[in-house]
Amino acid sequence: MGSRVPRGRILRSRTVPTNSELPRDHACLIVNGPDQPGVVAEVSALITRHGGNIVTLDQYSSNPQGGAFFQRVTFHRPDLAVALPDIEADVAATLGPLQMQWRLTDQSIPKRMAILASTSDHCLLELLWRHRRGELPVTIPMVISNHANLASDARSFGIPFFHVPSQGPDKSEAEAKILELVQGNVDFIVLARYMQIISQGFLDDVAVPVINIHHSFLPAFIGAAPYRNAHERGVKLIGATSHYVTKDLDEGPIIEQDVARVNHAMTAADLQARGAFVEREVLGRAVKWHAEDRVIRHGNHTVVFTDRP
Amino acid sequence: MGSRVPRGRILRSRTVPTNSELPRDHACLIVNGPDQPGVVAEVSALITRHGGNIVTLDQYSSNPQGGAFFQRVTFHRPDLAVALPDIEADVAATLGPLQMQWRLTDQSIPKRMAILASTSDHCLLELLWRHRRGELPVTIPMVISNHANLASDARSFGIPFFHVPSQGPDKSEAEAKILELVQGNVDFIVLARYMQIISQGFLDDVAVPVINIHHSFLPAFIGAAPYRNAHERGVKLIGATSHYVTKDLDEGPIIEQDVARVNHAMTAADLQARGAFVEREVLGRAVKWHAEDRVIRHGNHTVVFTDRP
Amino acid sequence: MGSRVPRGRILRSRTVPTNSELPRDHACLIVNGPDQPGVVAEVSALITRHGGNIVTLDQYSSNPQGGAFFQRVTFHRPDLAVALPDIEADVAATLGPLQMQWRLTDQSIPKRMAILASTSDHCLLELLWRHRRGELPVTIPMVISNHANLASDARSFGIPFFHVPSQGPDKSEAEAKILELVQGNVDFIVLARYMQIISQGFLDDVAVPVINIHHSFLPAFIGAAPYRNAHERGVKLIGATSHYVTKDLDEGPIIEQDVARVNHAMTAADLQARGAFVEREVLGRAVKWHAEDRVIRHGNHTVVFTDRP
Amino acid sequence: MGSRVPRGRILRSRTVPTNSELPRDHACLIVNGPDQPGVVAEVSALITRHGGNIVTLDQYSSNPQGGAFFQRVTFHRPDLAVALPDIEADVAATLGPLQMQWRLTDQSIPKRMAILASTSDHCLLELLWRHRRGELPVTIPMVISNHANLASDARSFGIPFFHVPSQGPDKSEAEAKILELVQGNVDFIVLARYMQIISQGFLDDVAVPVINIHHSFLPAFIGAAPYRNAHERGVKLIGATSHYVTKDLDEGPIIEQDVARVNHAMTAADLQARGAFVEREVLGRAVKWHAEDRVIRHGNHTVVFTDRP
Repeated sequence: MGSRVPRGRILRSRTVPTNSELPRDHACLIVNGPDQPGVVAEVSALITRHGGNIVTLDQYSSNPQGGAFFQRVTFHRPDLAVALPDIEADVAATLGPLQMQWRLTDQSIPKRMAILASTSDHCLLELLWRHRRGELPVTIPMVISNHANLASDARSFGIPFFHVPSQGPDKSEAEAKILELVQGNVDFIVLARYMQIISQGFLDDVAVPVINIHHSFLPAFIGAAPYRNAHERGVKLIGATSHYVTKDLDEGPIIEQDVARVNHAMTAADLQARGAFVEREVLGRAVKWHAEDRVIRHGNHTVVFTDRP
Repeated sequence: MGSRVPRGRILRSRTVPTNSELPRDHACLIVNGPDQPGVVAEVSALITRHGGNIVTLDQYSSNPQGGAFFQRVTFHRPDLAVALPDIEADVAATLGPLQMQWRLTDQSIPKRMAILASTSDHCLLELLWRHRRGELPVTIPMVISNHANLASDARSFGIPFFHVPSQGPDKSEAEAKILELVQGNVDFIVLARYMQIISQGFLDDVAVPVINIHHSFLPAFIGAAPYRNAHERGVKLIGATSHYVTKDLDEGPIIEQDVARVNHAMTAADLQARGAFVEREVLGRAVKWHAEDRVIRHGNHTVVFTDRP
Repeated sequence: MGSRVPRGRILRSRTVPTNSELPRDHACLIVNGPDQPGVVAEVSALITRHGGNIVTLDQYSSNPQGGAFFQRVTFHRPDLAVALPDIEADVAATLGPLQMQWRLTDQSIPKRMAILASTSDHCLLELLWRHRRGELPVTIPMVISNHANLASDARSFGIPFFHVPSQGPDKSEAEAKILELVQGNVDFIVLARYMQIISQGFLDDVAVPVINIHHSFLPAFIGAAPYRNAHERGVKLIGATSHYVTKDLDEGPIIEQDVARVNHAMTAADLQARGAFVEREVLGRAVKWHAEDRVIRHGNHTVVFTDRP
Repeated sequence: MGSRVPRGRILRSRTVPTNSELPRDHACLIVNGPDQPGVVAEVSALITRHGGNIVTLDQYSSNPQGGAFFQRVTFHRPDLAVALPDIEADVAATLGPLQMQWRLTDQSIPKRMAILASTSDHCLLELLWRHRRGELPVTIPMVISNHANLASDARSFGIPFFHVPSQGPDKSEAEAKILELVQGNVDFIVLARYMQIISQGFLDDVAVPVINIHHSFLPAFIGAAPYRNAHERGVKLIGATSHYVTKDLDEGPIIEQDVARVNHAMTAADLQARGAFVEREVLGRAVKWHAEDRVIRHGNHTVVFTDRP
């Protein structure tokens, strides 16, 4: 969940319509902290006494003796909007003494996602297309790019597009402008092949999770030009990795990875073309899981309660 | 769980050592029945009041309003063997009024699995090898075959081998002999490419689950010679399906399926050779999940709480 | 290659720009007929004596003794356009006496592809997107639909859209209109989830290959509502199949298939949503391979010389 | 092909029976060298004039203008054994002037493979099992291990087992003993999880290809303990890599790679258990392809003409 996420908050705002038919009267409760007997029972009883019916329940303990505990439970409760403040107060009263962090969300309220892109269109278009199909439970208040070429693509989906050029080594002006656009308006940011390094200062100021897609199966081929490096090494698989952005480039907690097969006859450009399909698939999954509160950060790791069948 | 499984029983016997280091002091509780609010909370509270700590919890409701409910929970409880009868009595008292079926098992006690084979070795050897590696939480009291050629293979793994020939259209004598061998000695039976049709009478009498591996992605290519039929249709994928055996050939509830790619240049024999790898993988998974009480039968369907990452 | 494909023709026309940078001065020669020693040597020598350098060569013989022979060879020849008529004449003179069918194409000339769609957008958009990225060596002179809802999508890619409604059981008027639009203007037709049955008369008249995407792993779940039927059978994999359309519904030669994993918790609607991703992937590959002359029809089978690594 | 492979040799010896029914009267010709027009035609014509019929033909040019050229052709020729010396002489006369390296093999003669193992059984048993099933066109004259525990496994397959302990930092004595065993008796060596570093001197002296299986998707997690390192980094995929051994540890030319999905709940031991399945699959493919002359070394890369469908 990371240090920047406040303990216990309810996402309430809903400014832009989503295309997804989000489940009505469903809530999601994320709990994590030191493992101890009875937490699952406490949480289940709490939900039951507020008239909720548990729909899904995932949990993980890094070690039943003194490890870290993670739980994600979704429940159905008629007239949820009315009951949510009471439930929230009860969660705080119940879990506070147990040193647990928690987050309770109304699943009918989509998260607000900003997309940052550069010149490549494949990751951006995949997110916009999945959003239009109702595959992503988010709203997209804006697409921001340091280039102008994707403006009409974004706007053809009805999404506002902002052009924030970023030239030269000093990125502070561009970052300030992006900050102005996103602050208060988004719940997380996705770098859809945004080819600018994000500063620690920006991460501190923006204070929402930032998700990146890296075009290799990390930790192989860290840094620039991974397809060229993969070609030089003669690998038989290429991959893509979606991770949270931290101050350490390409070192943030991994959310999702996948690979595709390549062979000797493929050039670095061929790897890049094939890799584009892996990138859009991996990023699509990572964004969905983040938006559905399926990903919990834990140090430099993630606990991901996927919906993979 | 099927109609033949008694409501509420504890597996206690342990006759043959397993190679798997089974978790000590861990229990598994399977619950299913009509969905209703609060079942998860009831079960969680029950486990907590007996000093148990929930390790994993999976559940599924076919419909939150009036559907069928399925839950699998595993928990750690020091000195489980001492506490199990009390827990069992409490489960019966708690879930009985709710019309719930249940099954409570001590996970340190492996299920006893008989393997039936014919002449093909690949599925049999894969199960024996996985068992030896500690990948399957079972004991294998016997391998039975209607042919003699696999005797030394089975015995080289330290497993008893029984030869029960089965010639001619009348299988009753062979089935009677198999029944004599397995009755009371095994908890489930695996047909590892056993090429004899099992009669309804045998299924009734043996009264334990029987798992088969079919060499196609059912429902395509039902019946005999699926690789030849797949070759004739010109498919680009072949597959394998593991399912519970019912009186309707190849129609039983599917546990697991997978496929492999094939092409125009492959003969029916090539498909069969490649298919052997899919068969052993699919059967290996299905057997593990059954042995770990991850599979719940529901009409002609299965609910499978897999350990797939 | 099918009975409707004339023996030996050169595709020359190029009316609409493609986004793919097609290889200049590269030709593709497809040869098929009765297997006999020396065909590969004959073809290789022919290409060499016309100044060509073989770039790729695939071949397949269904049986070295009296089987059917299939070859696809691509070669580089500077100033190909000038030399092509001479090469063509030589191919005819060389292969004619051997009872071989052949087809020689200039790879810098894209095939012209019409797309027929109904209301679903995912397959259509995937083809348009891949085309824009330069992944499909085709031009797209038109999109035709019996519904109006995808008009602006198609046109936003710069592709003409024609609305040809088709109501009631008599499809002859709609088919006549489609025929008018495509005849002489396209080299093949793709049914991108076009939900109308194509008549034998239309297939005869249009006289170009028609490619369909079926939403199941054929031959399982032939006919309508495959996702609902898959849900009812409780399969653990769903799939999609791209095939050439013949008079027998869902029975035409299979070009490509793939699957995705599903589980008990997914509804028929969930299967359909996940299946959409398989469909667009399978159709994307089948169209590319057809466009690159990698697919040769042989009775109800296909020989596919894929570019899969 | 590597510097140690003599230009143009015929493998003739056949000392131990194989279980594979190797194709009779089929030869394989590998050609590589500077790309130039007409090589394919020369080779095809040569095969034809000796009465051969080409069965498969793969080729690759790293660059049609001045690149490196690689070709693998298999052909059927009745009474091959009689004709092979003449064909060989013709190949030498034809390809010598073109600066081409070549290797001509009778496909009915299996390569002789030594397996080196340590304590892990999964890779060794997979190779022995595939060999027994006729999946690997090799003979296995010996298994060598620095531990004794796999002796009875190897011998139960009818394969001689030699125990060559290797303790302490000085491996020279053990390597000398291994050299004594393999020299003149094997055509290549497979390290099936052999946990000893091979010296450059040994590689020089043994003068046959040595294939290793590394338990990570190289170049990620080079060196020891890759599963522990993968667990620490929190990757969502683990993998295995089969490569030729060179003096640079884990840096040799990659033959084949594959991956499996893992998640947050898996321990390093779990990754290792799951990884065992990937390792045996990857090594099984790499060995088959090497044995079938499908792998050509080119600097630190490989050209692999796979039989993957």
